[in-house]
Amino acid sequence: MNSKKIAQDTAKVLQDYLTYQAVKVIVAQLTETNPGEAIWLRQYSSDGKLQDGERYIEGLMSELEGKKLVMRILTVRDNLAEQVLEYLPEMVSSSIKQANLAHRRHLLERLTQSSTPADNAESGLDANEYSDENK
Amino acid sequence: MNSKKIAQDTAKVLQDYLTYQAVKVIVAQLTETNPGEAIWLRQYSSDGKLQDGERYIEGLMSELEGKKLVMRILTVRDNLAEQVLEYLPEMVSSSIKQANLAHRRHLLERLTQSSTPADNAESGLDANEYSDENK
Repeated sequence: MNSKKIAQDTAKVLQDYLTYQAVKVIVAQLTETNPGEAIWLRQYSSDGKLQDGERYIEGLMSELEGKKLVMRILTVRDNLAEQVLEYLPEMVSSSIKQANLAHRRHLLERLTQSSTPADNAESGLDANEYSDENK
Repeated sequence: MNSKKIAQDTAKVLQDYLTYQAVKVIVAQLTETNPGEAIWLRQYSSDGKLQDGERYIEGLMSELEGKKLVMRILTVRDNLAEQVLEYLPEMVSSSIKQANLAHRRHLLERLTQSSTPADNAESGLDANEYSDENK
């Protein structure tokens, strides 16, 4: 397991995602202040270009309408990075631990159920399940 | 700009990506130790299921072959998280700053070029561009 390579790939995914979020923020702002530009930016950004954030920004520079938006995207992305990055390790780490607990419990339930089908057939759970019909 | 919501969405993306990387690591390990299982896991994971990591793991529990892989995925994902998460803020932050510098320089070059087309036509750059034809 090459964790250095995985860290690099993950950082790239994170950077691309922050670029996508920066564009989303700016489209929302422009919708209020300059609807025409908002429509242009949304359309320009719609066909998967944002999957590679740096290529997207370079591409934007070739467009007359894009040039003036580039600086804004860079600034918003930088601000976003400052606001969210430091909290991510703790957020993701605790979310994974919580999810793992839930998955382990579900797995245990499934393994217990499938290994004792005969017991389940006569269990209180099944009796409750049909209680409405029996009333 | 709702940075709390953006942080939560980004954490979700990160968690899904670490799940994807954990599955990738396990497919690579199984390719060495149990090629049949590796093929099964690769096929099971191929049609976009991994875009939502937690649903993917829940889905895997419904499969006979998947049940025994779930615990391994949870463990590898947890290890990966411990190994890469703490480095990400610094990696992404400095990568964004570096990328922004490069983009700003390119943008400045483009703006300078397009604002002085007449100057460029007589510049040394154009003379060099056609120098091969003039030889």
